[in-house]
Amino acid sequence: MNELSKLCIHTITTKPWSIEEAARNYSASGVKGITVWRNALAGRNIRQTSQMLREHDLSIVSLCRGGFFPNSDPAKRNLALDDNRKAIEEATELGTKLIVMVCGADPSQSLEDSRKQIQDGIAALIPEASAAGIKLAIEPLHPMYADSRSAINTLAQANDMTEALNSPWVGVAVDVYHLWWDPNLENEIARCGKNNALLAFHVCDWKTPTTDFLNDRGLMGEGCIPIRKIRSWVESAGFNGFNEVEIFSTEYWKEDQSEFLQKIIKAYKQFV
Amino acid sequence: MNELSKLCIHTITTKPWSIEEAARNYSASGVKGITVWRNALAGRNIRQTSQMLREHDLSIVSLCRGGFFPNSDPAKRNLALDDNRKAIEEATELGTKLIVMVCGADPSQSLEDSRKQIQDGIAALIPEASAAGIKLAIEPLHPMYADSRSAINTLAQANDMTEALNSPWVGVAVDVYHLWWDPNLENEIARCGKNNALLAFHVCDWKTPTTDFLNDRGLMGEGCIPIRKIRSWVESAGFNGFNEVEIFSTEYWKEDQSEFLQKIIKAYKQFV
Repeated sequence: MNELSKLCIHTITTKPWSIEEAARNYSASGVKGITVWRNALAGRNIRQTSQMLREHDLSIVSLCRGGFFPNSDPAKRNLALDDNRKAIEEATELGTKLIVMVCGADPSQSLEDSRKQIQDGIAALIPEASAAGIKLAIEPLHPMYADSRSAINTLAQANDMTEALNSPWVGVAVDVYHLWWDPNLENEIARCGKNNALLAFHVCDWKTPTTDFLNDRGLMGEGCIPIRKIRSWVESAGFNGFNEVEIFSTEYWKEDQSEFLQKIIKAYKQFV
Repeated sequence: MNELSKLCIHTITTKPWSIEEAARNYSASGVKGITVWRNALAGRNIRQTSQMLREHDLSIVSLCRGGFFPNSDPAKRNLALDDNRKAIEEATELGTKLIVMVCGADPSQSLEDSRKQIQDGIAALIPEASAAGIKLAIEPLHPMYADSRSAINTLAQANDMTEALNSPWVGVAVDVYHLWWDPNLENEIARCGKNNALLAFHVCDWKTPTTDFLNDRGLMGEGCIPIRKIRSWVESAGFNGFNEVEIFSTEYWKEDQSEFLQKIIKAYKQFV
């Protein structure tokens, strides 16, 4: 059984709750970390929200999410860069040291073009990230999102890009949902560990059947992902940060969120 | 514009038609090849069906499908082997020289176990395949099927397994739907070409958004897959067989199949 000292939950996991409700309930249940989705900050003073989270003894693990660089239209690529600069400002106000990057894709152009635009986009942000002391984590997404959400679809690609960018401010996020199927996963986790580039670890489960491309993720233990084995690889690679529960689920969002939170904690202890 | 001399259609693509209707309509439209799904043979004398297809001047490109080897229960693995032996008999009666393998998965056990059971299963079939003069094509499936339909999810894995089995009766099938996202695709296509192991080439398209995990494939040109580029890689690797149209689509199956067939031919000429 695991302690909760490394349990972090993404605000999107309990989407029906405001960030204030999430903070209160996470904290009351012994959760120690929170990853904040930008939509949860809408209409709020970010510094005050940060203060509120700290008063609940929550570590602010990361801001989700930057990215979405590729576009066949250069003007739109510039808008994306502006939005990423805004994310760096928000992360600064929030007091977190990490932004997770969902890199984006554009099905109207080649994957090679999208991948180049992602690398160029991150490169353009490094000076601001460095000045702010904030790291950028490239999150490879499952190949089923290669048309729409990310042209970075394996940890090998994220590691290649990290090595090419060669900056202490760029690394990777490992999410078991996106990567569990990959026969090279263990080796690639070791590789980013060696580079001190393993910046985040996200967990949930893959259900059989999965009925929706986006919002049918499972609670840990409900599916086929060997979460504990992958966690052991991540920790062997030197990672000692939070285990972040990131579940998008139309089904769970319909439930009483307090009951769902207790299920998360139970599943975390048993399967992570 | 392409000729139709290398156009093959899978019976499942026009699922509402019987194999007799498919043969008559394909042939009347100038299609030269057919891949037969086993369900299309139900209740028929296979030798007579083969004769019927040849009378329509159709090459019988392959039988779909064998595979589904992994199971945590050894008795069920033996049943799967028996079913694959039956597929070899059916392919013999049909007069085709190729069986496509959808290798299977079992979410109740590890991917490593499933992958070993797949390799052992194919190895067990080689003597019968060799005696019958029938090749077995390992078809890597998209990682979104790693829990349910195939634990072989990249062409690299299929190539590794083919090389490990080291038999002239085992090779791979390249389906653009499953593999288009892979940054190593061009190299891996060249690799199986060098091994004389590139046995089949399947086309369709990936739509944005895709709304169903199984039955929402697009007609060529409707999505983001660079089909013509991948075809050029396959042909550069020495492949000169049929381009097989394999579309599972609830939407297209609802249409008049004669009109759908004309759309396939038009899309084939324009995008394959």
